[in-house]
Formats: sequence, structure tokens, C-alpha cells
Amino acid sequence: MPEPRFDVLAIGNAIVDILARCDDAFLEARGLAKGHMQLVSAEEADRLYGDMGPAIEISGGSAANSMAGIASFGGRAAFIGRVANDQLGRVFTHDIRSIGVAYDTPAAENGAPTARCLVLVTPDGERTMSTFLGASVELDNGEINPQAICDARILYLEGYLYDPPEAKAAFHEAADHAKAAGRKVALSLSDPFCVERHRDAFLSFIRTHVDILFANEFEARALYQCDDFNAALQAASTDCPLAILTRSAKGSVIVSGNGAIEVAANPVEKVVDTTGAGDLYAAGFLFGLARGLPLGDCGALASLAAAEIISHIGARPEQNLGVLAKSRNLLS
Amino acid sequence: MPEPRFDVLAIGNAIVDILARCDDAFLEARGLAKGHMQLVSAEEADRLYGDMGPAIEISGGSAANSMAGIASFGGRAAFIGRVANDQLGRVFTHDIRSIGVAYDTPAAENGAPTARCLVLVTPDGERTMSTFLGASVELDNGEINPQAICDARILYLEGYLYDPPEAKAAFHEAADHAKAAGRKVALSLSDPFCVERHRDAFLSFIRTHVDILFANEFEARALYQCDDFNAALQAASTDCPLAILTRSAKGSVIVSGNGAIEVAANPVEKVVDTTGAGDLYAAGFLFGLARGLPLGDCGALASLAAAEIISHIGARPEQNLGVLAKSRNLLS
Repeated sequence: MPEPRFDVLAIGNAIVDILARCDDAFLEARGLAKGHMQLVSAEEADRLYGDMGPAIEISGGSAANSMAGIASFGGRAAFIGRVANDQLGRVFTHDIRSIGVAYDTPAAENGAPTARCLVLVTPDGERTMSTFLGASVELDNGEINPQAICDARILYLEGYLYDPPEAKAAFHEAADHAKAAGRKVALSLSDPFCVERHRDAFLSFIRTHVDILFANEFEARALYQCDDFNAALQAASTDCPLAILTRSAKGSVIVSGNGAIEVAANPVEKVVDTTGAGDLYAAGFLFGLARGLPLGDCGALASLAAAEIISHIGARPEQNLGVLAKSRNLLS
Repeated sequence: MPEPRFDVLAIGNAIVDILARCDDAFLEARGLAKGHMQLVSAEEADRLYGDMGPAIEISGGSAANSMAGIASFGGRAAFIGRVANDQLGRVFTHDIRSIGVAYDTPAAENGAPTARCLVLVTPDGERTMSTFLGASVELDNGEINPQAICDARILYLEGYLYDPPEAKAAFHEAADHAKAAGRKVALSLSDPFCVERHRDAFLSFIRTHVDILFANEFEARALYQCDDFNAALQAASTDCPLAILTRSAKGSVIVSGNGAIEVAANPVEKVVDTTGAGDLYAAGFLFGLARGLPLGDCGALASLAAAEIISHIGARPEQNLGVLAKSRNLLS
């Protein structure tokens, strides 16, 4: 079998982030659950945007951020997700292509505009997200072809994709193709509320399709409906050959058939904005895995990428992660 | 006469900045004059954007940045400039209104999209700009009414507005109204290339209409076609009751009928991005002037605002400048 063209192919919602700072009272007054992602209608998004302070626009989308991270490490990444043919869609398309990620999903010509995520960053650096899915919901299995899946070592799926029904169908079809082609399937649980919305479907999917599972402690506890991190870790390790559970500043745990490996978080001077922390963690891990590195080294690359992303505003790397990793002797 | 509603009313091009990092070789390969602003067609903008790395979008526009600065100091500012009714136009409108600047220019419904400026930031923090004026050129004197001008202590005009012919006409009409109403007229020369394009018209306008002139040393030397900073300073002081010449890290000089005052630049830890340095300098100065502060104090506020803006990406303040100024005992 020829060498796959890509290290990782990801399928996700194609989103532009609109980031603004606010205080905790702003969130509370609007009933926004701090640290979480909620879905909003176009009207709700407009209302919230009208209330927000001055913002900046940066390409986002969970799995898309991860692919930008892999490209920044020097990896070969591809992305599937739908924008509209509008200004924000062109922004998303430019940004992901300009960093070297293969991205060819045709823009939707009619219907909803490009998806946007209103990201509110509080003084502690925590981000709270309100997402209008827009054209993202128009992703369908017409965009999934078996060859594209076969072309990548790892298929990476974001849990958020379970929200739009058509995308969920595409997600399942892609995973079937990957299994048939002998490729690995990786899943990120994305958000505890997202897990609550789709718990049973996620559990079934994980048990039948997923080789590599990413979750933070809140998502893992939501999935297994338990309060205890170690119980969630144990359950994940039973359901999945390789599970990686993250705990923010407390680091992460990689659990596989060979036991558990604890990975320390990289220290950062100041947490400016946690947006994309999980996405870039996954980027570093998957890049290492695709390149055949030991699991502990994958975890170190993951922590490095997560530390870079939370040191500045926005969920796309500002530094070249490959150069950064080499300077820390994590890559040769 | 009643107290004017606004400290400053500005007229300028309404622009969204698209900022990306690049190295010097990138500029050289494309013949871009480092540190300057060039005008580009829609096609040239598309080509350059295609070549650029991943970017972020932040509202910009020289005079609009200055008004955002005045609002951040706690001042009352208004802005006139034309966007299109498109996504970037809505971004510009949201951002300037959300910081409290009065902005009511109707968006253009047809024709060119909202103006954008491709800002390339080199590792030394210098910015090089390529501007597609888009809907900005559709500003006309229909937007200038005498009452709006009379409502502000100071009318502030950006030199860049001389590039679109209709806007230039609006600019002149506004200045005539301001003079008739006994208001002050302030002008920023914007860019040495812009000065080269319009030297004679600028000189004539300054001598007949301008009370307060802002220029950096390159713009002042271009205006007076001299190599010597002091000669340019002398010439400006003859042409204009109050001239403020800036010299980046070497500080600035304020020259009026009472002689010259030297103002030190505020030290910054690292120059991240010089975009908006002149705009925020003008913001601090005009805010102080509108509030009746001595010229040296106006210069200190100007230097503070310029230092804040060059410490991060983008030309809109990230910190509340009023709070910052109070913490330095520059405002009570």
C-alpha cells in the first residue's frame, strides 16, 4: 500500500471566531455557561454580537484549528468542512490554505452564511462560546469519498459535528470508510454540553469505531456520568484502545494497552485565552502519532502546542510549532 | 453657544485590516515599500492576499482608530466614513459603535465591498500596508452637514481621504463648515507617499484651514521637500498655529506660538506591531486638547496611547486608555 498523502484528515465545522473580552458579569447577565459552547440561532448571535465589545476575527473551528496545528508542526493535513461563498468564508478558506492544509470543500452558494463563533474571553483567560452553525450544517456525505479517507493515516472527527444532522451522517460514513481502509479513527468529545446532547450515540460510536479518543475531564465525566476522573479514565480505557484525557494545568493522562502515562502541562507565563487549547493538544498528539513517535513524546508535543495557543488570543498558532518543538528537542 | 456634543468628529476611510506576519524578503519580492501604505486594486489585493500567510481581521482606518482611542480615553467621539452592506462592513460598524463612537454613515448598498487594508508585519514590528479603498470612495458631501461639524470641538481629517476624489470634496466642505462655526480643524498627513501624491493641495489646505497638524518626520520632510527634520519643523510652525511632529522612538515635538515642547516616547518592552501608532498618538493628543489640558500633557497622553498600540497586534486599543492614563497620573 502506498504511503498515505496525509498524516491526518479532519472533518469539522468550518467556523470564523469573533473574539472579544468581557467580564464575568457579562456572561452571568446573559445566562452563558462559562467555559462551555452553546449553539445559537442567527438572531441570538446577532443580539449577542450587538452587546459585545470590539472584537477581532480569526479563523477557528475545532478540528480546523487542529489541522492548522499539524501543518505548523510540519505535518501534512487535510480538512473537510463547509463555508458559504461570502467574505467570512473566504477568510476561513484563505487562512487554512495559507498554512498548507489541503482544503477543497466547495463553498455553499445559497442558504446560511459562514458559521461564526462568538468567543467571550474573561480576565482569567477562560473562553465561553456561542456558535451559529450557518453553512456548516450543509456539510453532507457528498463530500466524503473513500479515496480521501484512504489518503490519510488518521481520520480525525470533532464531536461538535454531531450537532448538524447531515454532518453527523457524513461523520459516520467517513468512519466506516476509514475502518474499511485500515486507517485509524480519532474523535474529540469537544464539549461537555455536546456530550450531554449526544451521549448514547457517542458511546456507541466510540465502542464500534474509535481508535483514539480525546476528552477533557469534564467531557469524560459527562460521557460516563461519573464525578471521578479515575473512574472516567478507567471506562475510557475499556471502550477505546487509546484514550487521552486532559486536565488543563494539571496535565493529561494517556491510557493504552500498555498502561497509563502522565504528561505534565507546559508552564505558561500568563493564560491569555484558552480558546483552542484542546484543539492544539490534539494537533501535537496526532502529529507525533502519525510520525510514529512514542506515546509520551506525542503527549509532550501536545502540551507544547496547547501552551503556545493559550499564551495569545485566538486558536491558530502564532509561532511555527515545528521550530518551537525542535528548539525544545522534542523533534529532531 | 451650547457645549459641543463631541470632543472630536473625524472623517476618514472606513477600513477593516487584514493582518499577517511576513519576513522582509516577502515585501522585497513584491516590491512593497516597507513602512508605507500603497493603494491597490481589487485584483492586486486578491493576489497579495492569496500570497499572504494566515491573517486576523481587526477594524482599522486611520481616523477611525483615532476615534476608538478617544472613546477608550473616555472622550466623546464621532466618525464619518463609508462601508458597504457586507460582512466586513458589519464588522467595522459593530466595532466602532461598541466602543462608544457615534457612527451613522449609511452603508453603500451597491458597488464595491468594504475597504480592506492588507497589513504585513515584519519581525521588527514594522507594518507595510496595501489598501483597497472599496466602498470608502463612495463617501461624498451628502454625509457632511453643518450641524454635525458644529457639534464637535475639533474636526479631524486623515490625509488618506485625499485619495478618493469624492471624499476629498467632502473633506474640504467639512473644513469650511468647521471654520465658519469657529471649530478647530486638525489634519494628519497619514503617509509620505500620500503626501507625494497631493503635496500642493495639502500645502494650500494647511495654510488656509488647518489649526492642528500631525505628521511624522517622513511625512513632514515629504511635504516640505527637505532632508532636515528641524527645517520641516520650522516650516510647519510657520504654516500652522499648532504642529506636532512625531519621530517614533525618538519622541515628538509640539510647536506652537509659545515655542517648542519635546515629548519623550513611552518605553515599550517589545514593539510587536506599529500599525496605528500615529493614529493613537493623535487620539491621545486630541483628547487632551479637547479637555483643555496643557500641550505637554496632551503629548504625554499621546505617547501613552501610541505605546499601548505598538505593544500588540492591531490598531485598536486592547487596554482602557482612560484607566491606563489614570494609573500613570496623566488624568485625574
